Amino acid sequence: MKRITIYDVAKEADVSLATVSRVINDSNVVREDTKQRVQEAIEKLGYKPNAIAQGLALSKTTTVSIVMSEKLFAYNGKILNGLMDVAKIYNYNIMFHTTSKGISKMQDVIESIIKSHVDGVILFNDNFSEDEMEVLQEYQIPMVVVGSQLAETGIDNVGNVYVNFEQMAYDMVNQLFDKGITDISLVEDKLNLSMMAQLRSGIEKAFTKKGLEFKKYISYDDTYKSSYNFLTDYFKSHKPSQFVFTFRDSQAIALLNTCQEAGYKIPDDCQMVCILNNKYLSMTRPNISTFNIPEYDMGAVSMRLLTKMLVDDDSIKNKDSKQIELGYSFIPKGTTN
Amino acid sequence: MKRITIYDVAKEADVSLATVSRVINDSNVVREDTKQRVQEAIEKLGYKPNAIAQGLALSKTTTVSIVMSEKLFAYNGKILNGLMDVAKIYNYNIMFHTTSKGISKMQDVIESIIKSHVDGVILFNDNFSEDEMEVLQEYQIPMVVVGSQLAETGIDNVGNVYVNFEQMAYDMVNQLFDKGITDISLVEDKLNLSMMAQLRSGIEKAFTKKGLEFKKYISYDDTYKSSYNFLTDYFKSHKPSQFVFTFRDSQAIALLNTCQEAGYKIPDDCQMVCILNNKYLSMTRPNISTFNIPEYDMGAVSMRLLTKMLVDDDSIKNKDSKQIELGYSFIPKGTTN
Repeated sequence: MKRITIYDVAKEADVSLATVSRVINDSNVVREDTKQRVQEAIEKLGYKPNAIAQGLALSKTTTVSIVMSEKLFAYNGKILNGLMDVAKIYNYNIMFHTTSKGISKMQDVIESIIKSHVDGVILFNDNFSEDEMEVLQEYQIPMVVVGSQLAETGIDNVGNVYVNFEQMAYDMVNQLFDKGITDISLVEDKLNLSMMAQLRSGIEKAFTKKGLEFKKYISYDDTYKSSYNFLTDYFKSHKPSQFVFTFRDSQAIALLNTCQEAGYKIPDDCQMVCILNNKYLSMTRPNISTFNIPEYDMGAVSMRLLTKMLVDDDSIKNKDSKQIELGYSFIPKGTTN
Repeated sequence: MKRITIYDVAKEADVSLATVSRVINDSNVVREDTKQRVQEAIEKLGYKPNAIAQGLALSKTTTVSIVMSEKLFAYNGKILNGLMDVAKIYNYNIMFHTTSKGISKMQDVIESIIKSHVDGVILFNDNFSEDEMEVLQEYQIPMVVVGSQLAETGIDNVGNVYVNFEQMAYDMVNQLFDKGITDISLVEDKLNLSMMAQLRSGIEKAFTKKGLEFKKYISYDDTYKSSYNFLTDYFKSHKPSQFVFTFRDSQAIALLNTCQEAGYKIPDDCQMVCILNNKYLSMTRPNISTFNIPEYDMGAVSMRLLTKMLVDDDSIKNKDSKQIELGYSFIPKGTTN
């Protein structure tokens, strides 16, 4: 089961390792007859140059790390597709890191990223604290954070591709106010705390402008089953809000099912939107109103931005050009009037 | 933006690259005072040994490729979690390859796997044909195929972790026969053709044994929307089968919604099961009957098997020990009697 290595090629061709490496990397300093001998040895042994070692020899690897939470595979599939498609176009190797509570400390992930000398890193929001990003910055690894907008930081070499969730919530609440609706709730999604913070801030800004205070930021264990049980119990003694923001499909569907089972009519007694869109929102009765967030594009644009950062492209010399905001639109369905 | 390399360390410590490499890899042949000089240089420059280069130097990388279809992120999340958790325990680097129609030819993926000299490969069923697996075998890369059972092949160095979908379907159909139900359909899932083949084979075996012929293998474009439109139209002039096997949640939910909207009662007029379980099957009314398939375990066991294959562990010397069948159980809910 021995695998052919560069050492075997050097021995076969009777040259040094450095010479084999130069031939593989198309250097001009090798004599033509030596080059030929090495190439014959490579063919004879069936040796495949190691892409990574080749990269090292050229002091240029083509490896990018993607770091995401294990919990979010199902939700970030489209972003991941966008990332991978562009990575393929540029022939990048993708090193995959997942974070999960209890098994991988963020510190270990950082250590592993640094040790593998990747060229760049794509982070999903909520994986890393600012302190942790600063550690990565010390090693001067270009990074792109995908998801929501970063707070203004001292960190320089960081790109950001995001949707403006604050604006989204602010605009929607103002429209609700225009219709006389002020009893509004936001259900917390613990997997996406930075996006939650932005939604909450948008709602609060609209409330403050109106001279009101926003009080219904609602938090409970947010798996479908526990949401379902909590809400079933809750609706025994409470009425639903006039309008509820949820973030993930399972939260929205738990609300829809429990409301209806408690005898409330949707959307007459309670309107709701689910921020993240997916096909399941069209499978419920009624269908759940949502937003069109360009997830595939977020992935593709993030990876494209990273390719530019890796070659220090002129078009991204100033900081603002690395902050890319993508648009969204409201998709009204059966749970809103 | 220059990154510190092993060359810088060698220069700083005034030793050869080989010496630095030996120190990094804890070789005993380096003199203590030299070792100390190198370590001081590493600390002074803040050099992080490259995990991959370190692996090469020991002629032992710790990199495993995971190859999966882009389309299946959302469905194989739990398998991926199992794979990643075990990979972390063994400190493996994960190189991530996705396949997608139109962008990545399988041939390119194979080339990229071979070039990166990974130690082992995890394949999801339906990604690779047998011919393609044979190409990988020529390079003697240990592989584990996860999902369904491989046909008997000449391929030797391949592990297989699977659930017996044929048996699953065979047993269920026999139970249906016992209840007098013979009008049975299987809806094709184009993303999981090898698993479909096994389900179909199980159903056919049961039919043949009973002296009947299985005719209702149903194929249509299988996104939720097109299934929904197709079935809405279909039920204008047809009745549903007595019992329908579907594979993915969206197919099951499309059937459930269209049946009910056409005025049929579930499960009285049509019973159904969805083979792959997930939370969405508990969000419909009624909840959809399904199977408990140990997805996380499939991932974890696959990666553990690969670790054994990589060190040529005694416990997996014979071929059978690399074929691991995992159990499953039926979860009856509201769509079956």
